[in-house]
Amino acid sequence: MLGENRITLKHGAGGTAMVELIEDVFAASYGDLNAPRDDSARVDVSGPLAFTTDSFVVDPIFFPGGDIGRLAVAGTVNDLLATGAKPIALSASFIIEEGFPVNDLITIARSMEETAQEANVQIVTGDTKVVARGSADKVFISTSGIGVILRNGISGAAAKPGDVIILTGSIGDHGAAVMLAREKLLDAETVKSDTAPLTDIVLNLIEAGCEIHSMRDPTRGGIGAALNEIAKQSDVGMVLDERAIAVKPPVAAACEALGIDPLYVANEGKMIIIVSAADAERSLDIIKRQRYGYDASIVGRITSNHPGQVRIKTSIGTTRIVPPPSGELLPRIC
Amino acid sequence: MLGENRITLKHGAGGTAMVELIEDVFAASYGDLNAPRDDSARVDVSGPLAFTTDSFVVDPIFFPGGDIGRLAVAGTVNDLLATGAKPIALSASFIIEEGFPVNDLITIARSMEETAQEANVQIVTGDTKVVARGSADKVFISTSGIGVILRNGISGAAAKPGDVIILTGSIGDHGAAVMLAREKLLDAETVKSDTAPLTDIVLNLIEAGCEIHSMRDPTRGGIGAALNEIAKQSDVGMVLDERAIAVKPPVAAACEALGIDPLYVANEGKMIIIVSAADAERSLDIIKRQRYGYDASIVGRITSNHPGQVRIKTSIGTTRIVPPPSGELLPRIC
Repeated sequence: MLGENRITLKHGAGGTAMVELIEDVFAASYGDLNAPRDDSARVDVSGPLAFTTDSFVVDPIFFPGGDIGRLAVAGTVNDLLATGAKPIALSASFIIEEGFPVNDLITIARSMEETAQEANVQIVTGDTKVVARGSADKVFISTSGIGVILRNGISGAAAKPGDVIILTGSIGDHGAAVMLAREKLLDAETVKSDTAPLTDIVLNLIEAGCEIHSMRDPTRGGIGAALNEIAKQSDVGMVLDERAIAVKPPVAAACEALGIDPLYVANEGKMIIIVSAADAERSLDIIKRQRYGYDASIVGRITSNHPGQVRIKTSIGTTRIVPPPSGELLPRIC
Repeated sequence: MLGENRITLKHGAGGTAMVELIEDVFAASYGDLNAPRDDSARVDVSGPLAFTTDSFVVDPIFFPGGDIGRLAVAGTVNDLLATGAKPIALSASFIIEEGFPVNDLITIARSMEETAQEANVQIVTGDTKVVARGSADKVFISTSGIGVILRNGISGAAAKPGDVIILTGSIGDHGAAVMLAREKLLDAETVKSDTAPLTDIVLNLIEAGCEIHSMRDPTRGGIGAALNEIAKQSDVGMVLDERAIAVKPPVAAACEALGIDPLYVANEGKMIIIVSAADAERSLDIIKRQRYGYDASIVGRITSNHPGQVRIKTSIGTTRIVPPPSGELLPRIC
């Protein structure tokens, strides 16, 4: 068994050592990866497709509430869902630093498979490259996904004045958990990443015929970045209600200690869902019944005023602008 | 303009600096990348799909005959073609080391776009992550691709005794070029990588109705690895004719100097094509008329003897076994 060993350069070289690694680690975790083992996997789908990709470089690779594998699968699944698509198939490509423990790779591959099963999606193809010690930091994973678009027209450019902004839960959990884990702060275990695939939330809303206009997965840059992007794409204004945006107390405390604003901290198991006012309450009810949506709330509205700008009514009753983040953010959060 | 600058951590942080990078570098090169800028791109296709992914970590990133961008696009296109699919859409995900010159990134993005145009495929979605200096080596690119399967049943498991093995050109060019460039050997410029998308070769063969059984892109591990994989998958033997396998004299000299066997050296613009004996000459004629196929030849046959084993008739008339490579190969060749 490979388990006790460490990755060497020959595991990425295309020979029998690589074949053994693929069989023992990836095929053992993902099941029938790509039989027969050809250069591409076959996927039987019909209709317009959504296609997305992300690279994951999170540091540390294991953190409270998840790991780089769960993050990669959930992140790609959520990107497909955000365009109104049912996720079908994923690819997973690994860049591994020489000396990486094979057991950690097995743990990550199993976590990917568990998350894929939870999201009802298959990992069908992959690749493995190994670089010398010091040429990469432990492991990076790139995932791509394809999905079938179930509902046309869902786009960051389709939000309309009068629409309601639903957020599926509290903010900042992922970013705060990763930062605390990276800095090895004592209370790290009290804050857990929210990393999760949101398949049930989105597919149930679509199935119920709720009039969704826009969705976005507020990862890097948090809801501050995602809402500004939508406001700009749709040329609409937004007014948020600070009191309706949930931040768990330990996450709020962590953000304060780290000097970061939870509005700009990454989430990995939350969705911004913008729906017609008529469907807002019904949508919220559906979301709250799903595993990852119990904490959902209506956090704001779309306006025709101040197009392109996001404003927030603070808990003391004043209104301030939520600018797009400039880039002074947290590195390697996803 | 960003051109004179270097990549900083904020270029990967999800804020305005990242948006600027995407607009100035990637959207400027790839055209209308993903408008509106949603979490997934939309691809309109129908029929069974091929889906593939690869990460590219080649060192150096610029080498005679190509660069990491051309390599990423051609490699992914060729993997789709090898399963009988017409390539449709690609994704491109970058992991960039802090301090990387933006001008180099622009050069790579343009090279990707040129190669994509040559292959008649579109880069439709992407991602960018930046890691601290020393946490990655310059730039890694992960590409995924989707294509429409035009011909069912082409597989490494479908080679049959009596079939003919065609190789679309000389071997070892890419691996030798990269090794010479990496070692900064004097005669580096005399050996050029063959990196190229083989769209014309494969689509013309399919259109002409040639009875293709198996195809494979002999990259890492060279034709030695690829042919052994097919022999094993199809449970057939192979007999190659050494005199028919072209190795350019400077490539042969480089391999000898580096102590490597060209049979196991990576190619990035060649295809192994296994066809029925009845269609062999007609297929060869079609291949030779294409830009990257002028040097094609019939290099061997499939046998029912010694299943799973590849043998070669040497130029002095003896026969030896070509074993699968064990893994003592060249790191970071693609």
